[in-house]
Amino acid sequence: MKTYLECIPCFVNQAFKTANIATNDPDKVKAVLDSVGDMIKSIPMENTPPETGNHIYQKIREITSNHDPYKEIKKAHIQEAKYLYPKLKNLIKESSDQLLTAIRIAIAGNVIDMGVDKDFNIINDIQKILKQDFAIFDYEAFKDQCNKAKSVLYIGDNAGESVFDCLLIEEMSKPTVFVVRDIPVLNDCIIDDAIDSGLGEVSEIISSGSTAPATILNLCNDDFLNRFNSADFIISKGQGNYEGLSKVDQKVFFLLKAKCKVIANDLNVKEDAIVLKGINLN
Amino acid sequence: MKTYLECIPCFVNQAFKTANIATNDPDKVKAVLDSVGDMIKSIPMENTPPETGNHIYQKIREITSNHDPYKEIKKAHIQEAKYLYPKLKNLIKESSDQLLTAIRIAIAGNVIDMGVDKDFNIINDIQKILKQDFAIFDYEAFKDQCNKAKSVLYIGDNAGESVFDCLLIEEMSKPTVFVVRDIPVLNDCIIDDAIDSGLGEVSEIISSGSTAPATILNLCNDDFLNRFNSADFIISKGQGNYEGLSKVDQKVFFLLKAKCKVIANDLNVKEDAIVLKGINLN
Repeated sequence: MKTYLECIPCFVNQAFKTANIATNDPDKVKAVLDSVGDMIKSIPMENTPPETGNHIYQKIREITSNHDPYKEIKKAHIQEAKYLYPKLKNLIKESSDQLLTAIRIAIAGNVIDMGVDKDFNIINDIQKILKQDFAIFDYEAFKDQCNKAKSVLYIGDNAGESVFDCLLIEEMSKPTVFVVRDIPVLNDCIIDDAIDSGLGEVSEIISSGSTAPATILNLCNDDFLNRFNSADFIISKGQGNYEGLSKVDQKVFFLLKAKCKVIANDLNVKEDAIVLKGINLN
Repeated sequence: MKTYLECIPCFVNQAFKTANIATNDPDKVKAVLDSVGDMIKSIPMENTPPETGNHIYQKIREITSNHDPYKEIKKAHIQEAKYLYPKLKNLIKESSDQLLTAIRIAIAGNVIDMGVDKDFNIINDIQKILKQDFAIFDYEAFKDQCNKAKSVLYIGDNAGESVFDCLLIEEMSKPTVFVVRDIPVLNDCIIDDAIDSGLGEVSEIISSGSTAPATILNLCNDDFLNRFNSADFIISKGQGNYEGLSKVDQKVFFLLKAKCKVIANDLNVKEDAIVLKGINLN
């Protein structure tokens, strides 16, 4: 997805929010704002927003010397999600369409997102998303692909949400590779978070190599690219990965909630819509 | 009031919003964002926020060639407020404390503010503010000063709100000078808007000389400064004027709703609080 003008104030808001989590020093927060302000004129609007995010979060790391500002927040979200895990497991077991319920719960987990300027209440959001109609619903193609696939390449998004991803991976019951970011960026899942979330028990965990808050192919390592290019069933979670992968040539199923207006418009759905969208299906 | 770090993302958001109202040309909107981004590093944090706003709105005028982007919006707000005027006049007449009800209505009018990133519903807001407790309530001093004063210097804020100001001016029943901005900035009241609002029938209308979305003394003209320095009863409406005048040496009564967290913190009240605050009362 290209960068829209609306993304620019959002970059500034996000940088301010993250800088304040990364440091208590107002001079450093100001330095982050100065630096992001300077970047605006050279943002390549044809690039995806997380490519610019990559530069911004790099600057925040340099200025604040804090390389994982969301570390404690991620831990808390994983604990909260793990507490809900048995209840959600049971809910899937008792539902009439277990795969679909697991997909809905995996999308509900996607509300745990520090990169979006909205508060969330995970219990309320799960309850809502369990009943919500999909705005885009390529479920038949998803099921068909899932049945045929020998393995799954599952591209994760946020820590906490990752616990809910376990439930969908268990439900699909295929050999799965779970993909995380290379370094801490926002509250996105890295290898340690994936292990804490229990993903080591249900999948092989690899880094995409991307340091951006998204999977950006030209930032990814060869191992990931090889697996991506040869995968027969790719699941991509969340907005960041959609921004990074919406124009690729591979068959990808995006599971996400459209939490910002720009992404909702790009998908031609309403804000807060839930989406199961397959691309390059033929 | 000094500029807080929180004001910086807000400047960018405001500039983006105003640029989009001023022009349909995305290149011009981008040029506004580039320009505001460049400004960030040189914002004097010891200055008041509307002094920076003054530079930003000047840039928006230069880049978009639109010198009054809120013209139609202001007209619509004045019409809407005028429609409510007889009902509100009656409401004051039937209330047990007519001056206080007129003050509450003048504050309710202050929600008509395009410079704050919140939606408003004027009818709902009036109903709420008529029942809301004041977080700061220097009403006795206000009444006392009002009774003693030979005349009132009433510093207006937004167009639309200006119709509600008529009601308070009528209620006080003193010779009144109503002060407006020198040129269109945001949806702030200028001379034409004040006349449209009916203020010419209840007061003398003057420009402060300020081109900022606030009364900034070092931007004001000599006529206003002379009147300000010799006034025996000054009323200042809204956030912008509070930001500009909160540190002056004169006795001033501020009537406002604290619509943003920064101003709420500066006043030591909660967001959305209503305030009748006198300064330099002794």
